[in-house]
Amino acid sequence: MFKGIFTPIVTPFKENEDFDHDKMKYNLDRLGSTRLDGIVVLGSNGEFCYLSESEKLEIASFALENFTKEKKVIVGTSCESTRETVSLTKKIAEMGADAILVLPSNYYKGAMKDDVLYKYFVDVAEASPIPVILYNMPANTGINLSASLIAKLAKHENIVGIKDTSGNIVQLTEIIRDTDDGFAVFAGNAGYLLPALAVGANGGTLALANIFPNECCELLSLFHEGKLTEARELQLKLIEPNFAVTSGGGISALKAAMDMLGYKGGLPRSPLKPLADESIKALRNIMAKAGAVLVN
Amino acid sequence: MFKGIFTPIVTPFKENEDFDHDKMKYNLDRLGSTRLDGIVVLGSNGEFCYLSESEKLEIASFALENFTKEKKVIVGTSCESTRETVSLTKKIAEMGADAILVLPSNYYKGAMKDDVLYKYFVDVAEASPIPVILYNMPANTGINLSASLIAKLAKHENIVGIKDTSGNIVQLTEIIRDTDDGFAVFAGNAGYLLPALAVGANGGTLALANIFPNECCELLSLFHEGKLTEARELQLKLIEPNFAVTSGGGISALKAAMDMLGYKGGLPRSPLKPLADESIKALRNIMAKAGAVLVN
Amino acid sequence: MFKGIFTPIVTPFKENEDFDHDKMKYNLDRLGSTRLDGIVVLGSNGEFCYLSESEKLEIASFALENFTKEKKVIVGTSCESTRETVSLTKKIAEMGADAILVLPSNYYKGAMKDDVLYKYFVDVAEASPIPVILYNMPANTGINLSASLIAKLAKHENIVGIKDTSGNIVQLTEIIRDTDDGFAVFAGNAGYLLPALAVGANGGTLALANIFPNECCELLSLFHEGKLTEARELQLKLIEPNFAVTSGGGISALKAAMDMLGYKGGLPRSPLKPLADESIKALRNIMAKAGAVLVN
Amino acid sequence: MFKGIFTPIVTPFKENEDFDHDKMKYNLDRLGSTRLDGIVVLGSNGEFCYLSESEKLEIASFALENFTKEKKVIVGTSCESTRETVSLTKKIAEMGADAILVLPSNYYKGAMKDDVLYKYFVDVAEASPIPVILYNMPANTGINLSASLIAKLAKHENIVGIKDTSGNIVQLTEIIRDTDDGFAVFAGNAGYLLPALAVGANGGTLALANIFPNECCELLSLFHEGKLTEARELQLKLIEPNFAVTSGGGISALKAAMDMLGYKGGLPRSPLKPLADESIKALRNIMAKAGAVLVN
Repeated sequence: MFKGIFTPIVTPFKENEDFDHDKMKYNLDRLGSTRLDGIVVLGSNGEFCYLSESEKLEIASFALENFTKEKKVIVGTSCESTRETVSLTKKIAEMGADAILVLPSNYYKGAMKDDVLYKYFVDVAEASPIPVILYNMPANTGINLSASLIAKLAKHENIVGIKDTSGNIVQLTEIIRDTDDGFAVFAGNAGYLLPALAVGANGGTLALANIFPNECCELLSLFHEGKLTEARELQLKLIEPNFAVTSGGGISALKAAMDMLGYKGGLPRSPLKPLADESIKALRNIMAKAGAVLVN
Repeated sequence: MFKGIFTPIVTPFKENEDFDHDKMKYNLDRLGSTRLDGIVVLGSNGEFCYLSESEKLEIASFALENFTKEKKVIVGTSCESTRETVSLTKKIAEMGADAILVLPSNYYKGAMKDDVLYKYFVDVAEASPIPVILYNMPANTGINLSASLIAKLAKHENIVGIKDTSGNIVQLTEIIRDTDDGFAVFAGNAGYLLPALAVGANGGTLALANIFPNECCELLSLFHEGKLTEARELQLKLIEPNFAVTSGGGISALKAAMDMLGYKGGLPRSPLKPLADESIKALRNIMAKAGAVLVN
Repeated sequence: MFKGIFTPIVTPFKENEDFDHDKMKYNLDRLGSTRLDGIVVLGSNGEFCYLSESEKLEIASFALENFTKEKKVIVGTSCESTRETVSLTKKIAEMGADAILVLPSNYYKGAMKDDVLYKYFVDVAEASPIPVILYNMPANTGINLSASLIAKLAKHENIVGIKDTSGNIVQLTEIIRDTDDGFAVFAGNAGYLLPALAVGANGGTLALANIFPNECCELLSLFHEGKLTEARELQLKLIEPNFAVTSGGGISALKAAMDMLGYKGGLPRSPLKPLADESIKALRNIMAKAGAVLVN
Repeated sequence: MFKGIFTPIVTPFKENEDFDHDKMKYNLDRLGSTRLDGIVVLGSNGEFCYLSESEKLEIASFALENFTKEKKVIVGTSCESTRETVSLTKKIAEMGADAILVLPSNYYKGAMKDDVLYKYFVDVAEASPIPVILYNMPANTGINLSASLIAKLAKHENIVGIKDTSGNIVQLTEIIRDTDDGFAVFAGNAGYLLPALAVGANGGTLALANIFPNECCELLSLFHEGKLTEARELQLKLIEPNFAVTSGGGISALKAAMDMLGYKGGLPRSPLKPLADESIKALRNIMAKAGAVLVN
């Protein structure tokens, strides 16, 4: 059963935009010592779609080898075609990942009806040696996985959870209502972690947890301890930095924020641009205001 | 200070589509004996936009005279032009309403920038003898009042709250974060009452409370008593009937559901159509499943 | 049969925002001497939704009395409820209007399915003593009248045309394909007048024709004379000022542009704001560049 | 200078979903004998996003070797990262393609501001040994390339044209207005070929031309000969089959229609599903009604 707080880690690059092993090693070590329950490798924040297949294998392998065995590692294996997603999934499974995270195929949006998406996910789940977690990310894919589709998919024994980044709290509630307790429902963004927990979510898979890992875990703890007022105060405090490194500034801002904290963020791969100087300054203020100790 | 559970009441019509005083009297009496904190007259569920100005005055007057003085009455006074909204507001204020509920002017969507909307609401608030509650209803108006605009408007002493029907829980959280404790933030739909409360909302203004008034109030009580598990169970149970009478079937379904419970719903005004027979049957099942005692 | 170029006239106001008869008289006289085929009163550009019913009657009456009898006058009678649209339509018909222009009822967007809209328009058409022209304006109403719905409505003998402001040229082509030759299809915006004519439109109902009436008519003439290159050049020239007074600056810009040309535009009614000074300057340049002779 | 009618060819697969050389050879030979000016390989209709890099190279190479040298071949090289698009572009250029067709990078929609997209296309154009044609396809990418961005990009000497599939005829007109005559503007869909030509487009890159190649070319000829009435009749006739194989049924329908005509369409790659039986029947009627001679 997957639960708790996970973070989708970034992929650090060298100046020439090649994968930087050392920087990732640093981040893995440091995240490994936080209260996080696990990480997601090759997710949206990992710039998975900018990586070749060989890079994906190298990075997943590196993360699995270098991250503490005490926490879970989920790996994103989304490709557009069923055959490529299945092929990548099998290779990742052999490496020892705990689960895979899979987006809907989405380029041909008009054709991705529920029956097509259902078959896509089931085909992947049938072929995958390890559990599948659905990944709903309409802002990037242009496709929303409906609660009814998710509920239907949740009946498959190898589909064990969902990361929902839609921000639609009613939909999240419907998913919880319509799936078994063993199906893991994760808030996909820290902006609504507390309301998601209030309706029964099992945790969150949160970009913000790259920079505020313990604060995100603390929010979960406060909620479970029934300290709702404190949980709410923390939620309100996290809204602004969360927006800054997700919908606001995206990966470029997340990497810049990591740098401020001593993590190894660095530059995103092109065409993503590094954060502009004035945005860095604003981000620094937001981070400090939220209580972060900035070392750079 | 406005707080608790309000319901936007329907406007019952006779067969010829004229306003039906007797039916409204029945509903007002019965709602008056529930745990509700108040009602909204001439809201979206009141088919306000289908009513002439003289009908609006008649209906508001009738409701104010016939509803228990122990509960609050908010009246919707939204028109497209500032002068008409102000004119109607003054007449309503004289009748003794506790507050007015005001949508953004919205036909010229492209022109309704934040500065235009700001001036609109402030002009109304300045002219209104009674407090103003903002009404964010993007599904119907095509305009979303941003958290930053609401926070700015909340500084006006005569703007005392908001009914937010956007369903964007992060936006609701931002509004709560950026306004004083005295500013009332209401969930505008029962689908997310619990998550809204979790982040600090003061209550809800809920179409569903026309048919499940005490259940909506019970959810609020459970939350305040710290009985989160029970609150969640109730929230999950209310999702389905709530969808059926709001986004799903709209006013036609809400009125049909009221009829099933012995309230006086009746037909909507044209062009709205009464609920089709097969939809009535489905609605009946949903209502029964949610625990309603159907008398018709 | 309606064809040619019409313009939806503005409603001029005094400084106190009351209707200004003298200004409208001036505009009517001047537009009456252009090549225009007619005008639309109480359309979107006439700020119809900001006017009380008595104002609507007064303005329509005034326009019908003061505009040349050699050109046609269409009057907008859109209200949200069927009964109010029918009531206004009957009064307008008695005044001698040539046709009415009717938007879909649109506040309850979720309920406005094709069968509801079909009944709405047919009910109005049945009750209307004068021909009905459909008005598709999704940017303001949030509802698009589909080609199939329009084709079905076009079979009604009292529904004689459509002003389509969707900008969807394929939809416009489908409407032309699926309606009889006697059904008038008007481009609703000068930005695509030529392409609309190319696929068979009967003309245009164009805000731009308030300020470039003869140029709009000239484009139509060039097209009918087979002078496609000249027509294209004119179309390209009109795109910029057209954008400026429609999607760009809206009614405020249209009224400002009229003032520059000596027409009586004046201020819009609140909450619409007059064009800001810097925008007026930019508009002046656009107008001059498009060949307009500015007198103010 | 690119002009005339191109078709984005499909990628035929064997039953096991591997690329089928023989089927593509057949299609290439047959399309080579039509009036088409050229083809696009690895476009959206070529299921480019379902192909591995090695498959892309194999297919492009095969098409370049087997298609008549008398017509042009454009190859799609869109990847998400700049480095991958550049890498693929260089390999394709070496094979002798006439130009490349490039989508905006689009997964991180929120980050793809105009300055980011500008740099992306310029970086690709700088690195590409052969001309670049921009590809605007908002329905699939969720990103619209604005007229102003396109005009700015068109100033680069190696960016020579655009395929615009937005369907926004005003935007297409603005592009034509704001670019030099040497910049090729192609309608990206046969649904608006005639209106696009009317405002000055240089031709079309049309999925429909896979099944109606000569009809699409005939429409262009009729337009250039000034036979506007005949062109319009043809345009109206092509709307329905065009919708059926693009927005309606997509690639699955296009491949099915090709099969009906004796071309080698076959099955799409998963997760795309083959056209359902009842849809095939409807498609058959549409094809026949449009004058196609069905052999299967």
